[in-house]
Amino acid sequence: MITSEALSALDREDRLAPFRDQFDLPMGGIYLDGNSLGPLPRRTLARLIDVTREEWGQSLITSWNTHGWMEMPQRIGDKIARIVGAAPGEVVAADSTSVNLFKMLAAACALRHGRRVILTEAGNFPTDIYIAEGLVSMLGPGFEVRAVAKEDIARSITDEIAVVALTQVDYRTGEMLDMAAVTAAAHGAGALMLWDLSHSAGALPVDLNGADADFAVGCGYKYLNGGPGAPAFLFVAARHQDAARQPLSGWMGHAAPFDFEGSYRPAPGITRHLAGTPAVLGLVALEEGVDLFLEADPGDLRRKSVLMTECFIALVEQECAGHGFVLATPRDADRRGSQVSFRHPEGYAIVQALIARGVTGDFRSPDILRFGFAPLYLRYRDLWDAAVHLRRVMETSAWDTPEFKTKAAVT
Amino acid sequence: MITSEALSALDREDRLAPFRDQFDLPMGGIYLDGNSLGPLPRRTLARLIDVTREEWGQSLITSWNTHGWMEMPQRIGDKIARIVGAAPGEVVAADSTSVNLFKMLAAACALRHGRRVILTEAGNFPTDIYIAEGLVSMLGPGFEVRAVAKEDIARSITDEIAVVALTQVDYRTGEMLDMAAVTAAAHGAGALMLWDLSHSAGALPVDLNGADADFAVGCGYKYLNGGPGAPAFLFVAARHQDAARQPLSGWMGHAAPFDFEGSYRPAPGITRHLAGTPAVLGLVALEEGVDLFLEADPGDLRRKSVLMTECFIALVEQECAGHGFVLATPRDADRRGSQVSFRHPEGYAIVQALIARGVTGDFRSPDILRFGFAPLYLRYRDLWDAAVHLRRVMETSAWDTPEFKTKAAVT
Repeated sequence: MITSEALSALDREDRLAPFRDQFDLPMGGIYLDGNSLGPLPRRTLARLIDVTREEWGQSLITSWNTHGWMEMPQRIGDKIARIVGAAPGEVVAADSTSVNLFKMLAAACALRHGRRVILTEAGNFPTDIYIAEGLVSMLGPGFEVRAVAKEDIARSITDEIAVVALTQVDYRTGEMLDMAAVTAAAHGAGALMLWDLSHSAGALPVDLNGADADFAVGCGYKYLNGGPGAPAFLFVAARHQDAARQPLSGWMGHAAPFDFEGSYRPAPGITRHLAGTPAVLGLVALEEGVDLFLEADPGDLRRKSVLMTECFIALVEQECAGHGFVLATPRDADRRGSQVSFRHPEGYAIVQALIARGVTGDFRSPDILRFGFAPLYLRYRDLWDAAVHLRRVMETSAWDTPEFKTKAAVT
Repeated sequence: MITSEALSALDREDRLAPFRDQFDLPMGGIYLDGNSLGPLPRRTLARLIDVTREEWGQSLITSWNTHGWMEMPQRIGDKIARIVGAAPGEVVAADSTSVNLFKMLAAACALRHGRRVILTEAGNFPTDIYIAEGLVSMLGPGFEVRAVAKEDIARSITDEIAVVALTQVDYRTGEMLDMAAVTAAAHGAGALMLWDLSHSAGALPVDLNGADADFAVGCGYKYLNGGPGAPAFLFVAARHQDAARQPLSGWMGHAAPFDFEGSYRPAPGITRHLAGTPAVLGLVALEEGVDLFLEADPGDLRRKSVLMTECFIALVEQECAGHGFVLATPRDADRRGSQVSFRHPEGYAIVQALIARGVTGDFRSPDILRFGFAPLYLRYRDLWDAAVHLRRVMETSAWDTPEFKTKAAVT
């Protein structure tokens, strides 16, 4: 039996508790949607104002050099590298996750010339599949995206596979794959391995180099708290950097972008994976989110994340028994990201009714209620309140109104 | 003989003069580099603060719907459409110019299946050529980028050409191509026409549909004053929208992005040319720049731009005669964008010495001094001051120091 008092006691002992004050959170709400859009770090607004008013407004074009705008993709990339188990020079922040997926899949396929299959999971985040389809449409006859069920991935890694492209944490269920084991299986068949860290970077310890990963991409606007539509990041293992080429060969990836040479010559290292001019305002906000994250102890973050997801599973089962929720997330913490999902046939309307009560989770088709647990700013007692709100929504059938049952576009 | 008094008289009659107060310009400087990074509109900071603090900070994930974040690429695209002679639904704001070039070139090549040459100008902006090279590297054997001298473009448009890709205004010389005539020549040979408007959108009247253009891209951070690394835009003529496909087929280009379907299905219309999640902070700043621009009369803008460039050419020839400047920009206003360039063997050092005196222009290899004239915020008397500073730099050989002769990365 979990009690409100026991959760408040955990809050008093929480070494991460002071971080909550670093965020500008709405009053009174419980935000369990940091896995979709992380909240605003207080420092971000101050830095955005300074960069806009002083660097853009007063220093203008000279800021590309004097305020380090030109190096932002690499500088922020090096910081993100510390979060995902990469080395300096292996990560840059740029473009969107979708665009970076295209670059990295193209680079991987070119390194495995002669192999024509991109293997992924049928339940992968849709843009991962869509981008692979777009790439394959350009690569020509014989190339294909092979999307298989999660349980069939291992047996599907054959010598036809150029690259295995998977998301570490399932966006619907929160299930976490064993990065080292899957990567080893891919390498065992001569394939390369690309990880999408959109639902793991900033949510749990990621060790790209420990797992011997080849490529990775990830999102800046979820657990890294980089702001809506923040720049994404990409990773290329150092051992591939001399050979890896990507086709979005814009001027920022050129070895000498301001020499205005007549033909593309890729920059050494990770820089060749940039394309256009760095998106300064977005990068500024991303950097603040990343910097704040780096102040926390990774061990503390993982312990709190595991405890929070365990508590929330237990709380919903305790408070909402009999209301038809089926856990969709693995009970084994080693196989779980920092999110808990339940299936319910009225999931969409229930999520809307919860949001109306100030508890923000989100819905994922066809029947998933998804709750993200960001250890930097959530309190244990928020879990209690969220579970009680969920119980009340069910007891009063608050979800059963046309207002909540009508679908709108949500992210 | 142009006098300071005559220029001040023009300022007093200038109907665009009130717009200067809408910008947060540095005190005392003369900014002739709006063709590289436009200055900060005053309204932009207020809107960025509001979006960050209220929409992101307080409304969080719900802002995708309640504050119209999801529609920003199309909404801002429709506004940019009015600036470039396009119709609603033909333009979206997204990604970088480089990434959009890739999408549009790929779409054009797919529509002209069987033709294998992208024709461009050898002096095109480098990223235009580099991106075309990257695309061609994926399209396979036989495909090529053919980069010819400007005077050879017309005779090079043969039935091998899939798409002619040119920048309307030359980034070095400011020379403007005849959009309608070149487009007609491309169509006469069965090729498609792609225009890069990076140095023309917001600088002069552009009429994509009047010229029957097929595709276009352009930059948000120059004359549109959208901020450093602002999102770019792309145009697809309505007549191509059912057939045009681009390979960066991310979820935001899907017909139903939140249905999470297992396979890509392109959205109708221009939306299919989006890829990843909209970059909200960058789009917010871009929208303010575009909105401000739309308040000005296009005829006034063009008249002032032509008069300013004419005056500056005459002033430099009057004040700096004998100092070795050679005009690189056409004297015919119909062949000139909103920029004036001179060649000088010590161009780099001269630009640095001018910047040290508060006159910001920029240098482009190998010998171009480039000055952009943005009619929204420049005064005619700024031209006088700039020309006098240039004369003094030459008279005193102020440029001839190691400080100014040593090159750093500039944009």
